[in-house]
Amino acid sequence: MNRNILRVTKRFTFEMAHALYNYDGNCQYIHGHSYKLYVTVLGLVNNTPGSPKDGMVCDFSVLKKIVNEKIVEPYDHTLVLSEKDESKKHLADSGQRTILFPVQPTCENLLLHFKNEILNVLPNNLTLANIKLYETEGSFAEWDIRDQDF
Amino acid sequence: MNRNILRVTKRFTFEMAHALYNYDGNCQYIHGHSYKLYVTVLGLVNNTPGSPKDGMVCDFSVLKKIVNEKIVEPYDHTLVLSEKDESKKHLADSGQRTILFPVQPTCENLLLHFKNEILNVLPNNLTLANIKLYETEGSFAEWDIRDQDF
Amino acid sequence: MNRNILRVTKRFTFEMAHALYNYDGNCQYIHGHSYKLYVTVLGLVNNTPGSPKDGMVCDFSVLKKIVNEKIVEPYDHTLVLSEKDESKKHLADSGQRTILFPVQPTCENLLLHFKNEILNVLPNNLTLANIKLYETEGSFAEWDIRDQDF
Repeated sequence: MNRNILRVTKRFTFEMAHALYNYDGNCQYIHGHSYKLYVTVLGLVNNTPGSPKDGMVCDFSVLKKIVNEKIVEPYDHTLVLSEKDESKKHLADSGQRTILFPVQPTCENLLLHFKNEILNVLPNNLTLANIKLYETEGSFAEWDIRDQDF
Repeated sequence: MNRNILRVTKRFTFEMAHALYNYDGNCQYIHGHSYKLYVTVLGLVNNTPGSPKDGMVCDFSVLKKIVNEKIVEPYDHTLVLSEKDESKKHLADSGQRTILFPVQPTCENLLLHFKNEILNVLPNNLTLANIKLYETEGSFAEWDIRDQDF
Repeated sequence: MNRNILRVTKRFTFEMAHALYNYDGNCQYIHGHSYKLYVTVLGLVNNTPGSPKDGMVCDFSVLKKIVNEKIVEPYDHTLVLSEKDESKKHLADSGQRTILFPVQPTCENLLLHFKNEILNVLPNNLTLANIKLYETEGSFAEWDIRDQDF
């Protein structure tokens, strides 16, 4: 109770189209979402009076830079398709910004991929605590470090 | 850290009136809220390439169907009263859609009741992780599986 | 799974200016945010039929009163500065509502201070579970009781 481990979160947004290969509903068709991504790191507050980063777990701008470079810039305004989806692969050659994804581009698989992309470049002093991806305001997937021993 | 247990959440909304029996404030009077309900299940991603449910913990549409049938349809546009509230019971006979609740219809008790309703019909392969009920955007109650060993 | 420990949350908002002493970016300059503060307590539902507080973990109005008195009233429409920031201290004498903070007034340090202020007056029967402070809708810090054994 007296410890002061904090979480710090930054939100991102990007506009992306996708389609689910072989899905038995409307998501089989190309459509898009205004994705919202919340990335959360966990740690103790840096207590170094006079330092520019005094009083922070992680400068919001550091988290912003990492996620913008690894996720927002590559995925914003793209069409993400399963690489198994032969019927749509020609779109990648037609001038669209198309990403052929190695697995089905569900909210869950996109989230796990984004998690790995962030973990690959996250500085050692930061611990990824949570990552949450909203397809819509009412539908989202979430990974949390505390759930992993469930 | 390397495990990939995910949470998947779907949001619902319904318009409901209630009154708190014997309460010492404004909530004793019949009033209503635009309730928001978030239902979250937890599990591993289904990795079955080619299957319609490939890449999902739970198809959002499955969760949507369960909660719409068990909660939204029965409670939307109803008036929920404590069955102990003799002064208002006649409303149930006056053509209103009235539900006489066995306990005080606080945000907390409604949440626990909705949780049980969902657990009764949730498929065995899904684990209810969290259920959150907003009375207003600034007031809500929440049950989380990780809090239960507190 | 069968236990019914609930969290109950109330949201608050206040308009506050701050500046980060010696920061290497725009936050060194006086600016402001519409801060949002979420305060969450945890407990079992009070099951006392007939009592005004029947069916509640904590009356939302009790939580509201505590946080309004300890946080919202003292901090709303103020300018919070580090007491080390000699270049701006004169503002405290110029008729502004200025608070000289003992540490850097980052989102994290404000959150920890607010947590302690609330813990000092929280009734014994309530457990503070979470406190979350939004600087903007896309940037926030959070303390959760379950993270403290991390």
